[in-house]
Amino acid sequence: MSYGYVGKVLRVNLSDHTTTVEEPSDDWYRKYMGGTAVIAYYLLKEVPADADPLGPDNKIIFATGAMTGTPLAGSGRNCVGAKSPLTGGFGDTQGGGWWMVELKKAGFDHIVVEGQSDEPVYLWISDGEVEIRDARHLWGKDTGDVEDLIREDLGDDRVRVTQCGIAGENLIRYACVVNDLTHFPGRTGMGAVMGSKKLRAIAVRGTGEVPVADKDEVAKYARMMNKAVADGERSAGMKETGTPATVMSLNVRGGLPTRNFQEGQFEGADAISGQTMRDTLLVERDNCFACPVYCKRVVKGDKYDVDPLYGGPEYETLGSLGSNCGIDDLEAVCKGNELCNRWGLDTISCGMTISFAMECYERGVLTADELDGLEANFGNAEAMLKLIEKIAHREGVGDLLAEGSARAAEKIGPEAEPLSVNVKGQELPMHEPRLKHALGVGYAISPTGADHCHNIHDTAYTANADDLNIFGITEPLPADDLSSAKVRMLYNVSNFKHMQNCAVMCYFVSWSTREFLEITRAVTGWDTSVHELLKIGERAATMARLFNMRCGLNDRDDALGKRFSTPFTSGPIEGTAPDAKDLDSARITYYHMMGWDDLGRPTASRLAELGVEWLSI
Amino acid sequence: MSYGYVGKVLRVNLSDHTTTVEEPSDDWYRKYMGGTAVIAYYLLKEVPADADPLGPDNKIIFATGAMTGTPLAGSGRNCVGAKSPLTGGFGDTQGGGWWMVELKKAGFDHIVVEGQSDEPVYLWISDGEVEIRDARHLWGKDTGDVEDLIREDLGDDRVRVTQCGIAGENLIRYACVVNDLTHFPGRTGMGAVMGSKKLRAIAVRGTGEVPVADKDEVAKYARMMNKAVADGERSAGMKETGTPATVMSLNVRGGLPTRNFQEGQFEGADAISGQTMRDTLLVERDNCFACPVYCKRVVKGDKYDVDPLYGGPEYETLGSLGSNCGIDDLEAVCKGNELCNRWGLDTISCGMTISFAMECYERGVLTADELDGLEANFGNAEAMLKLIEKIAHREGVGDLLAEGSARAAEKIGPEAEPLSVNVKGQELPMHEPRLKHALGVGYAISPTGADHCHNIHDTAYTANADDLNIFGITEPLPADDLSSAKVRMLYNVSNFKHMQNCAVMCYFVSWSTREFLEITRAVTGWDTSVHELLKIGERAATMARLFNMRCGLNDRDDALGKRFSTPFTSGPIEGTAPDAKDLDSARITYYHMMGWDDLGRPTASRLAELGVEWLSI
Repeated sequence: MSYGYVGKVLRVNLSDHTTTVEEPSDDWYRKYMGGTAVIAYYLLKEVPADADPLGPDNKIIFATGAMTGTPLAGSGRNCVGAKSPLTGGFGDTQGGGWWMVELKKAGFDHIVVEGQSDEPVYLWISDGEVEIRDARHLWGKDTGDVEDLIREDLGDDRVRVTQCGIAGENLIRYACVVNDLTHFPGRTGMGAVMGSKKLRAIAVRGTGEVPVADKDEVAKYARMMNKAVADGERSAGMKETGTPATVMSLNVRGGLPTRNFQEGQFEGADAISGQTMRDTLLVERDNCFACPVYCKRVVKGDKYDVDPLYGGPEYETLGSLGSNCGIDDLEAVCKGNELCNRWGLDTISCGMTISFAMECYERGVLTADELDGLEANFGNAEAMLKLIEKIAHREGVGDLLAEGSARAAEKIGPEAEPLSVNVKGQELPMHEPRLKHALGVGYAISPTGADHCHNIHDTAYTANADDLNIFGITEPLPADDLSSAKVRMLYNVSNFKHMQNCAVMCYFVSWSTREFLEITRAVTGWDTSVHELLKIGERAATMARLFNMRCGLNDRDDALGKRFSTPFTSGPIEGTAPDAKDLDSARITYYHMMGWDDLGRPTASRLAELGVEWLSI
Repeated sequence: MSYGYVGKVLRVNLSDHTTTVEEPSDDWYRKYMGGTAVIAYYLLKEVPADADPLGPDNKIIFATGAMTGTPLAGSGRNCVGAKSPLTGGFGDTQGGGWWMVELKKAGFDHIVVEGQSDEPVYLWISDGEVEIRDARHLWGKDTGDVEDLIREDLGDDRVRVTQCGIAGENLIRYACVVNDLTHFPGRTGMGAVMGSKKLRAIAVRGTGEVPVADKDEVAKYARMMNKAVADGERSAGMKETGTPATVMSLNVRGGLPTRNFQEGQFEGADAISGQTMRDTLLVERDNCFACPVYCKRVVKGDKYDVDPLYGGPEYETLGSLGSNCGIDDLEAVCKGNELCNRWGLDTISCGMTISFAMECYERGVLTADELDGLEANFGNAEAMLKLIEKIAHREGVGDLLAEGSARAAEKIGPEAEPLSVNVKGQELPMHEPRLKHALGVGYAISPTGADHCHNIHDTAYTANADDLNIFGITEPLPADDLSSAKVRMLYNVSNFKHMQNCAVMCYFVSWSTREFLEITRAVTGWDTSVHELLKIGERAATMARLFNMRCGLNDRDDALGKRFSTPFTSGPIEGTAPDAKDLDSARITYYHMMGWDDLGRPTASRLAELGVEWLSI
């Protein structure tokens, strides 16, 4: 065995309750690496084009990556994918925590779950042993209770649990996956896929070691990063205020999504900021496996009885349930976050679906009656909390909103449709394409619809071009640039990010590109290069694209939506919206750089260059 | 100044006898690096599409590379380019020696020579000072005499000289450039371009230091390679028998070009082999600047009075003037080599043009009368030597053959045309596409026509796939493979080789890809990567392609010729010729991987990806 991390794939069939173990080759591991590409591989190989995302033909894959479980900061992450009930195409989402490291220690790299169980079950994996267990007593329970009950069941407090929440049980199209109660692979509705299979949870206990090719080298880099973070040289400020610091930094620049992306500055930003949280509700800082960054918050509140068991809101949640709903009550936002976590809802799509409903209400597209009597104005925190509850339980208007803003808009009618801010049916995360124009292209072409974990192209990569030098790019470009030179940046950076989603490493630990290369070599033992890493990412994105095409998505689904070509009429980025034609042209240029044709279809020669001739159409 | 090696460009106008000095930016150096790309840059920027290669509008560029003159083995090389009088398109050729290192030490990275002098001149460059000097007394002289006369003129024995020979003066379309008498940037007729400008020589003396970003690191790698070569761990056997060892190794495999590529095994191979040379005519082994490999031969012979001043034949020459002409008299081949060097003829095109004449003679396409009375059978060493003399002086039939085999065939008539073994007018080097099928594609798509210094894709890269791992390619493929997977190898390896032609480093020093990356970083100070290095090569090849297109060449010129789709009827590779359709399909796949369209035209998006939007058509 020439690579450090080659392991096993567990296959679980919930229709006939059988399990098998497969051992892919070294070459397979090197080609697909983990995470996104492994998910795409199984979807393309095994899931029929017309599979109902919530039916027995869909498969859900829990995929670790090359780095998972090593002592390197950022390696405490995992990746879950399936055909998405939200987008109808490639579903893939990443989250932190401890669960997936436990899985790796238990001897498995990936789990492929197929079929559908008649009765609720959970999976119990312990050092290579696998059991499908009855979960009827867990059904309908809060995530916190489920974790307790499973640990009780198994008599081991160290058991790690991933689960879907009642939102998953109720097939909310944006139900998330919940790891260790406070970590969420949140997007593309993977919780609903678990729910549809009646797989409430996967409990894992592993005591093995995660093999790496060069232990000393890995340890050296782990120490280096831990020290750099401790000394404040890397990921500075993340412990102090966490991702919530972004509220103020984006608000100042006019890019804080406000009132369903109608505005870019929020008068209540300060009240829901990371700084305010630190000074008021914060009770603890939390982290993921092996991570010195401690970007996670734990909050507690009396007014709304906010339970610290479920952690605290990230920036994305402060945006989606806060500014984006016009709400400046920090504790209400924290409560909303707690409810989403308790029930297993993606806070981004949930907040965005609520803000959609609020805009519908304010514009008279939905009446209070149609909203079960709620006067759902922007800023109405009570309405926001009530709507979360209704959605999670599919009660009243919640049943409509549980379908996501795009499907809801379609049902409500043409007046509602422009108010759903989504790409491919998935709601936008809390980053403003009018501030960072290439981000609009990134959202449009992301295989999962609008997603901050795919194709993100932040201004960070233009403001600080140093890390682009290694790609041979030496000129920084402004945030509002959409030239082909900017697309070149997007092409390179997004492929690197896609690769990181195969390595399954967090974006928040600031490994340089060069360091990332070195740690990949140390972990895998591969004589690898930036070139190979970029090609791994490109391969993953291309495979996801092919799966989308098979599901009927095409270039017309790579649309950002008209809202973002309408400039703000005030604020620091007044008048700077990207031109729709420029966005389009940048999108096509990106296609071409990816080796796709004008309609976004991968060409045979690029598939050959990526070593996946088997995917030629 | 952020890079180690940024320097100066000397511009010499021979029409008005002026010189100027330019200092390109750091970014320019990083993008174009040196060698091939720098040549392509000036040709594309400054040479009109319809320029006569032998007229005043053509420019000839002497380009060092990032590595030139550093203590790293292989750095004693240089690169010369212009619009080619042989192909009518991109001309570019590389050779070893000391001259170009001296140029760098004199303070110049590149020389751009433009215009045309009325009277013969030579250029004298001494530590930043430049003089255009009278060369009337040098005109018509042997290369050896010219070097002596210049040193006498300048009163300095350490002056290094590059020159064109009488073949250049006489505008032989395959006249080479001669460095230090025994090193030859041989291909694409660059000597004729010098001759057309009446630039007989460039003499240089430099005492400066070649700057590098990290002296210690460069010294460490230099020591490492020197030791590895001394210990026989790298470039093993090269000192003992040099490139001539290839005669036997290819003959055994049936890939030794014999009698104008009609056969692949030569009954007289042993007599002209490197081993025989070592045991008979060899008097010394020679090297280039800073190189421990000592692949160069120096021979002496009495029968033909072979002068050791002009070194000795490489494998290419033993093939072209030996087996390829059916000649098994080693000393005659050595004499032929000496004459070519004395007069400045490319031994490959010269030998191939003679073998073309011999095949014409044997097939009755040319009579002895038409050959000035020579019974030019294969194997006739006297005829071979006589023809070299006639060609160099454009005497009798030599005037016809001085035009190269393709133009000669055109003049002789349709029966002669299939007997000229060339791509884009340039004769094939001594490697057999029926043995190594992808090499046939490499020759077809090489920007300079058939050329062992562009797009070479040898079986080395399939037999030993280890060095491909760094590109993410893990499967070795056989020599007769032409699948898209093989094209992927060709694409990656040839781009890396193109980059080495920009770094201006020898292929014969066996730096691994990883080591090459590390020494590039150490020399330049760039935070570079395999990705950037590949893109530098791809950029160079694409720019050369664009220049060819501008000169009227197109995809129909990317043709290997029918001879190579006809299998040998005996020998070890009997029946294994590449199928013409497979060659074609591999060629198109290569186009696509390069980001070119079906007709081999670079797309705007690839130009953008390469950061050369200015070249969009």
